[in-house]
Amino acid sequence: MASIFTEIIKGEIPSYKIAEDDRYYAFLDIRPLAKGHTLVVPKQEVDYLFDVEDDLLGGAMIFAKRVAKALESVIDCKRVGVMVIGTEVPHAHIHLIPFQKEAQIDITRKPIEMSSEAMEALAAEVRAKVAL
Amino acid sequence: MASIFTEIIKGEIPSYKIAEDDRYYAFLDIRPLAKGHTLVVPKQEVDYLFDVEDDLLGGAMIFAKRVAKALESVIDCKRVGVMVIGTEVPHAHIHLIPFQKEAQIDITRKPIEMSSEAMEALAAEVRAKVAL
Repeated sequence: MASIFTEIIKGEIPSYKIAEDDRYYAFLDIRPLAKGHTLVVPKQEVDYLFDVEDDLLGGAMIFAKRVAKALESVIDCKRVGVMVIGTEVPHAHIHLIPFQKEAQIDITRKPIEMSSEAMEALAAEVRAKVAL
Repeated sequence: MASIFTEIIKGEIPSYKIAEDDRYYAFLDIRPLAKGHTLVVPKQEVDYLFDVEDDLLGGAMIFAKRVAKALESVIDCKRVGVMVIGTEVPHAHIHLIPFQKEAQIDITRKPIEMSSEAMEALAAEVRAKVAL
């Protein structure tokens, strides 16, 4: 069965898309720990990040860098933090979290509230800034 | 002034070394959030991870994968998680955290207690398993 991320990548489930190329897809996390919290996913369905083959793994961080730079240009943040846990969905993904305080990078925190209109507007603004 | 990580890389400050090649250095975090908590550092001194140039950035994740596989072979853990915050030391570094529970990946948690003898023994055991 396809992972929920594969369904998102295929457009079978809608997402607040941030960027896409032939190997990766990035979209806003619908349970954001901070404004602009984004997931970067290799299109290839591999459960565990460190089982992703080298070139695709290295490329994921380079793709994430492009997304992070776009996030920084739109969101007032100290930096964009990175977190990979991976037990939530069995399809490798990198959390990018624009943060003001280090404590925001904690998966057990309660998500912030954002309306779907605000999420869509944010995604459009960031998407326009991504230079792949 | 050289960062504390550059001093560690040069051997001016001792560390529980896990792995090293011409571009990267990995060592046990002396304030471990979990057993085997390791820092992967590009030798080039760049403050912010997403300012590291593409090839060195992608390579850091591939190096981290080698270290993670060694950690997994020694430590009883569900997976090795990844965290990058970067505001602690102005020299880009990737936290690798072998975890049983997702909540262990939280920089604000209190470190676990390990004696220097236990840290040294663990580093030696993991170091022997790293295949670069």
